[in-house]
Amino acid sequence: MIRAALDTLGPAYLESRRASAVEPGAVCLFGAPYDGTTSFRPGARLGPTALRLASVGLEDYSPRQDRALEDVTLLDLGDLELSFGVPAPVVAAVKALTAEILAGSGLPLMLGGEHSVTPGAVAAVADLHPDLVVVQLDAHADLRPDYLGERNSHACAMRRCLDILPREAVLQLGIRSGTREEFAELRQSGRGIYPREADLRAALDALGDRPIYLTVDLDVFDPAFMPGTGTPEPGGIDWPTFARLLDALRGRRLVGADVVELAPQLDASGISAVLAAKVVREIILALG
Amino acid sequence: MIRAALDTLGPAYLESRRASAVEPGAVCLFGAPYDGTTSFRPGARLGPTALRLASVGLEDYSPRQDRALEDVTLLDLGDLELSFGVPAPVVAAVKALTAEILAGSGLPLMLGGEHSVTPGAVAAVADLHPDLVVVQLDAHADLRPDYLGERNSHACAMRRCLDILPREAVLQLGIRSGTREEFAELRQSGRGIYPREADLRAALDALGDRPIYLTVDLDVFDPAFMPGTGTPEPGGIDWPTFARLLDALRGRRLVGADVVELAPQLDASGISAVLAAKVVREIILALG
Amino acid sequence: MIRAALDTLGPAYLESRRASAVEPGAVCLFGAPYDGTTSFRPGARLGPTALRLASVGLEDYSPRQDRALEDVTLLDLGDLELSFGVPAPVVAAVKALTAEILAGSGLPLMLGGEHSVTPGAVAAVADLHPDLVVVQLDAHADLRPDYLGERNSHACAMRRCLDILPREAVLQLGIRSGTREEFAELRQSGRGIYPREADLRAALDALGDRPIYLTVDLDVFDPAFMPGTGTPEPGGIDWPTFARLLDALRGRRLVGADVVELAPQLDASGISAVLAAKVVREIILALG
Amino acid sequence: MIRAALDTLGPAYLESRRASAVEPGAVCLFGAPYDGTTSFRPGARLGPTALRLASVGLEDYSPRQDRALEDVTLLDLGDLELSFGVPAPVVAAVKALTAEILAGSGLPLMLGGEHSVTPGAVAAVADLHPDLVVVQLDAHADLRPDYLGERNSHACAMRRCLDILPREAVLQLGIRSGTREEFAELRQSGRGIYPREADLRAALDALGDRPIYLTVDLDVFDPAFMPGTGTPEPGGIDWPTFARLLDALRGRRLVGADVVELAPQLDASGISAVLAAKVVREIILALG
Amino acid sequence: MIRAALDTLGPAYLESRRASAVEPGAVCLFGAPYDGTTSFRPGARLGPTALRLASVGLEDYSPRQDRALEDVTLLDLGDLELSFGVPAPVVAAVKALTAEILAGSGLPLMLGGEHSVTPGAVAAVADLHPDLVVVQLDAHADLRPDYLGERNSHACAMRRCLDILPREAVLQLGIRSGTREEFAELRQSGRGIYPREADLRAALDALGDRPIYLTVDLDVFDPAFMPGTGTPEPGGIDWPTFARLLDALRGRRLVGADVVELAPQLDASGISAVLAAKVVREIILALG
Amino acid sequence: MIRAALDTLGPAYLESRRASAVEPGAVCLFGAPYDGTTSFRPGARLGPTALRLASVGLEDYSPRQDRALEDVTLLDLGDLELSFGVPAPVVAAVKALTAEILAGSGLPLMLGGEHSVTPGAVAAVADLHPDLVVVQLDAHADLRPDYLGERNSHACAMRRCLDILPREAVLQLGIRSGTREEFAELRQSGRGIYPREADLRAALDALGDRPIYLTVDLDVFDPAFMPGTGTPEPGGIDWPTFARLLDALRGRRLVGADVVELAPQLDASGISAVLAAKVVREIILALG
Repeated sequence: MIRAALDTLGPAYLESRRASAVEPGAVCLFGAPYDGTTSFRPGARLGPTALRLASVGLEDYSPRQDRALEDVTLLDLGDLELSFGVPAPVVAAVKALTAEILAGSGLPLMLGGEHSVTPGAVAAVADLHPDLVVVQLDAHADLRPDYLGERNSHACAMRRCLDILPREAVLQLGIRSGTREEFAELRQSGRGIYPREADLRAALDALGDRPIYLTVDLDVFDPAFMPGTGTPEPGGIDWPTFARLLDALRGRRLVGADVVELAPQLDASGISAVLAAKVVREIILALG
Repeated sequence: MIRAALDTLGPAYLESRRASAVEPGAVCLFGAPYDGTTSFRPGARLGPTALRLASVGLEDYSPRQDRALEDVTLLDLGDLELSFGVPAPVVAAVKALTAEILAGSGLPLMLGGEHSVTPGAVAAVADLHPDLVVVQLDAHADLRPDYLGERNSHACAMRRCLDILPREAVLQLGIRSGTREEFAELRQSGRGIYPREADLRAALDALGDRPIYLTVDLDVFDPAFMPGTGTPEPGGIDWPTFARLLDALRGRRLVGADVVELAPQLDASGISAVLAAKVVREIILALG
Repeated sequence: MIRAALDTLGPAYLESRRASAVEPGAVCLFGAPYDGTTSFRPGARLGPTALRLASVGLEDYSPRQDRALEDVTLLDLGDLELSFGVPAPVVAAVKALTAEILAGSGLPLMLGGEHSVTPGAVAAVADLHPDLVVVQLDAHADLRPDYLGERNSHACAMRRCLDILPREAVLQLGIRSGTREEFAELRQSGRGIYPREADLRAALDALGDRPIYLTVDLDVFDPAFMPGTGTPEPGGIDWPTFARLLDALRGRRLVGADVVELAPQLDASGISAVLAAKVVREIILALG
Repeated sequence: MIRAALDTLGPAYLESRRASAVEPGAVCLFGAPYDGTTSFRPGARLGPTALRLASVGLEDYSPRQDRALEDVTLLDLGDLELSFGVPAPVVAAVKALTAEILAGSGLPLMLGGEHSVTPGAVAAVADLHPDLVVVQLDAHADLRPDYLGERNSHACAMRRCLDILPREAVLQLGIRSGTREEFAELRQSGRGIYPREADLRAALDALGDRPIYLTVDLDVFDPAFMPGTGTPEPGGIDWPTFARLLDALRGRRLVGADVVELAPQLDASGISAVLAAKVVREIILALG
Repeated sequence: MIRAALDTLGPAYLESRRASAVEPGAVCLFGAPYDGTTSFRPGARLGPTALRLASVGLEDYSPRQDRALEDVTLLDLGDLELSFGVPAPVVAAVKALTAEILAGSGLPLMLGGEHSVTPGAVAAVADLHPDLVVVQLDAHADLRPDYLGERNSHACAMRRCLDILPREAVLQLGIRSGTREEFAELRQSGRGIYPREADLRAALDALGDRPIYLTVDLDVFDPAFMPGTGTPEPGGIDWPTFARLLDALRGRRLVGADVVELAPQLDASGISAVLAAKVVREIILALG
Repeated sequence: MIRAALDTLGPAYLESRRASAVEPGAVCLFGAPYDGTTSFRPGARLGPTALRLASVGLEDYSPRQDRALEDVTLLDLGDLELSFGVPAPVVAAVKALTAEILAGSGLPLMLGGEHSVTPGAVAAVADLHPDLVVVQLDAHADLRPDYLGERNSHACAMRRCLDILPREAVLQLGIRSGTREEFAELRQSGRGIYPREADLRAALDALGDRPIYLTVDLDVFDPAFMPGTGTPEPGGIDWPTFARLLDALRGRRLVGADVVELAPQLDASGISAVLAAKVVREIILALG
């Protein structure tokens, strides 16, 4: 109803910003509030707004990186207005905006929404960088060919990435839930990396200096730290582990990222949104 | 994971029940846990399970109707297993099961899910009863031709019913939210009925002894009574008003019904699910 | 942390909008997110943001007024950035912005925050309109001279208005909680008006065609409809009553308004914010 | 753990107060935090503490009664320390303390806990007043002979009262849930009174000037007003109805009362506890 | 009210399953939804249903055990229908069903309910296996002789086990809360085992190849991971620790188990029920 | 409203206790329920009551310290009645009561409220012990000179302590959020101590046998363990770390302490209040 104040969160703002706003080297944040294929507990569509609001309680300065938001160019392009229900046009819209950001030499940083939006962004980045490496932090393998007949389901996000990237180029960290078939593939491929800084460094070193896209499904964190997510899975990582994994990525060629699966209404305490916002801050500072 | 205990809520149970279970005259309850096109707050997919669990706290006996569940034949066919995302196959699955129930001379009673499932049930009932009258209790007109391009959206539920039924056959009670165009149509058609027993009786009497399908979007209730729904709208009806409207329908040819848009996780107090269960009990006793 | 997307909700946006934005006849919305003197349950500072977000689920069109937001000029000036703790500078900041809006011939519509912000707005409006009438909808009399020594407390809001307006010019509707002294004053003054349309019309008619400022403390509603407020008091009004009271004000000289005491985090179901947003929509359409 | 600050809420305080504290004519408040037989949703044991804490947000003055707490003698005897599980000793403990209060010419006012505590208090009062009349406000008839074999269940509370009082002496208002048998008895006995002031006055007048015990099961209120109760039942009364029923009792020989079934943790908004506290305030002022 | 759909969760289903269902070697799951003696925060009665519903979000496959539910025979016998209040018949009913399962050569796996149900199951298993060893994971020693006079209280669960088993046969891991006397006994007996895989292995090795019953009070986990429990105690274990302790049990003679004290309504985020369900999955796979 | 039962939590009780109650060597607990300058999420004013209520679920005995509350003299002086809004008189009131406790040779233990109350207590203790050392456990540096113009803001708490104590006398542990300037000062001063027992012991040993005041901002814990706090910051400590830090303080000259920033209504599960109560228990046993 009240549009004026929410322009920045909507399409009009987005339109007006797009042409002029994307600056070379700028981190270009945008939301993809879609949760149409969520199979367990919906609500990830509310993630981007909750994350922005929760960010108010955080400082701009990162002691770990000794770097503050004032040191980077950050543009918030607002949220995509996405159709409900059918996922294919959603993936297409994500790909289009990502391509636009890349065309302006910006660095895309997408806030989900469920994981099914990731293949759209990866497709756009891979068009520009055919030797792209994707680093996935996640509790779930997301390697199903389809889920109840839907190929664009969140449960197939990495399978869709593997449609366009070779198996070796997709590193999967933190996976602790999947089918027997998914784990067999993970083990055989050697791309199920232990979520430890040294193991990630080793895997990346072996791949050489290739551009990297980071996708963080927030359920990689233990549910104690991230209760507000659609499919919590006990046994996840904590903040220090995440911070060390990010250390392993810093100084490499990070060309884009996303942070998905925050379902804030499942966590009335708000700590999930705060954690997501801190993840985003650290990624902004590592990207920019 | 634990399938054995949930058989009755799933497809295996449904399959095994279908052939034998539908008895002539039986009220055949089933869930349609879909919320893929919800535009504001998702969660209606969790409605059927919450409603069944909340029903434990209610008596089987209705003082108003002086009738108890033991006086009717009630079959619970469990929940449809529905694809996520795309709504068209959902509507088709609802239509198929409703047709099957009708083929066995049962009385379908569907638990939503969002309102977009209703056109599937209405289509099946209208195939059998071409002179069908639909009585809608709802806060929203749901008369949009499409919503963000999706014709099967919950915001288009009654428009889809009007694709197969004449304008005069769709009575809309409790509507208090819509576009200027929707209200213009409501006023011009004379089918926006005041939610008062006498007005409903008069409208039904004018239509003669035609079969009736009742669709209850639970947001017809004021949010005070029904906080757990996706699009709450202040100014709704209360329980006595609902009970009197149902009085106006009893003794007529009720041939099917649905109760939709319970989003239980939005209401931690649980009163929404209890109210929904009481609505369902009264409809079972009126139908059976 | 993420400032870009929230500019419209913050001071930078406000600054840039002020000079150019206020148009003659425009309804100028702004937030005053202060709750420093709340005595029972804090959180009203979160009201403006929650109200804007909840407004997404509402239509722009009001069937009762047959008028939509597109028919008025609505400007959202964002939120004042207010100091924490001490209330006096808060009241001053509210007065200053209200005066600025009035100087541009705009119509101020303030979103609280707690009720202590109202005297600031009333003071600015009364400077322009010395014959101002204030219509208060509230559960509490707010007539204390001071509260625990603080004269700018929310419990003193109407007393502060009475410092600058005569007793006859302040109509108090819906009051059902106060001290013996407050009720004695209410009864003796004849300004404790029964919250019924006819009584409000009669009181306003007796005052002649004077400019009116409307202050709505949302706890005037029964807690069933408005659980998300700091000091809920059973026995309040419902939506139809509010709508009729607003009918009594429409067509008169409404020159400003506020809606205060939404404490959204106390109501996880979100119905309080939706009701507040509908109150605001109806006031915008009545003002503009 | 922290006993000192909670002395007044515990047994040590109770012991020390008993001998000296009960003054003739004093309203003697005490808690009976028991919910061992709750069949649907437990938590009524937390009622007394929540009610006391919520009372902080209410004024001492009742505009309806034009009377304040300073006009009566109110003693808070703290909470009984009750065994868990087995209900019989709980009922006995309630009876013993009630008898002690009556022996000191005090007026007992018990805060539940579930309804199963009421027969203990009624037994003590009936020992002193054999012509006692019990007025029950409740959604449920509570007339089962036993429930799953337990005669002291909350579902049998009024049946137990009828073990010691004649059928005519137990008036039941607001009942809207029960078995066919319970409603048959209610109708046949003529003691199912419509919850309207005139009907209650008529029934009491017919009984003559007999002493009255009032038991308020808070689920007599509609769940919209009282979500925080174990067995919510749609279709209940609102505050004005309650206030008028209490008007019908004022000026008669009220000799004791209880307010039961507040389960505060089911209602995070806290409005249930506030309503319960206002009910208690009005009863204190009517009793004292 | 709606019985048909809930047959599997109730006694009719149970009856029909018992005779035929228990197969040799099958893991026989059943619920014991009792919380009558809970002293702090009730609600464990809702545990079994919440656990089953939460299990939907988990995979059937355990990467740690490389084993899936399809590899074992799992029968869900539904929930015992238990009297409210008095604990002794509850313990008896648990013992009876456990004995029946054992008579059919099944492996009992009980879902609580509070810890007071465990002695019933242990008694039945010890009748069959007099050399039984009980491994308890718990925050609390549960060694009180009685609690407020009740010998069947949850606070006495292990004391009751020690009535029928020798001190050496009861290993207690994770205990971090108790009285001075309980800790003195723990230390003196040497049966307070540090919750570390090696220490558990050593203790079990010293006992030889004896049959083992595992009882998991979910409050052994830190409240961060398991907020939904009646008596949370800071300083508990995490998922990796639990998984390693279970590793120490696998390959030994596990003959029965229970998982108790999930109080799901205390944790609106649902992560407690998900963790409980994962605990149950791992135990099923270790048992079957 | 109900004062009698709450005397111990209020000023009358406090007055009557002060003169007589403070015994030499007694731990004197009191609440300072103030949150007027909270910048993100208010509610710390509700901390003291929630902490006392949650303490019911904890044992009196600490296995780690092998010491129980019966071994110390504990007095609960109830809560200060504090003005709302303006912080300066709050700080003064805290200082006055702390001085009174010290005058009676008691050991002050304050429950916040927000961190802005700490400088009042530290000032009183430093008057008695000019060589005081303050040990701060906190996520935030709290070293701002002022915050939005307010020098008594919670964000300035340690800066205010540094107005009266030398830089070396304020040890800051657990700090992981602040401005670039705050971290520069922390690093340069060497008083940002790693939250590890050995590091704390080393720092304290270097300072010699000086009296110590411990201030625990509960957000030093990770939000997983302490969601109920105003400004949660991921990456915090857990219970074992806290317990070891307290080990480093035991046996030294602890002369006072506070535990602040519990905002219980943000955490419906209640685990935050339980953790706070356990922190308080361990500090009582270390102090007394």
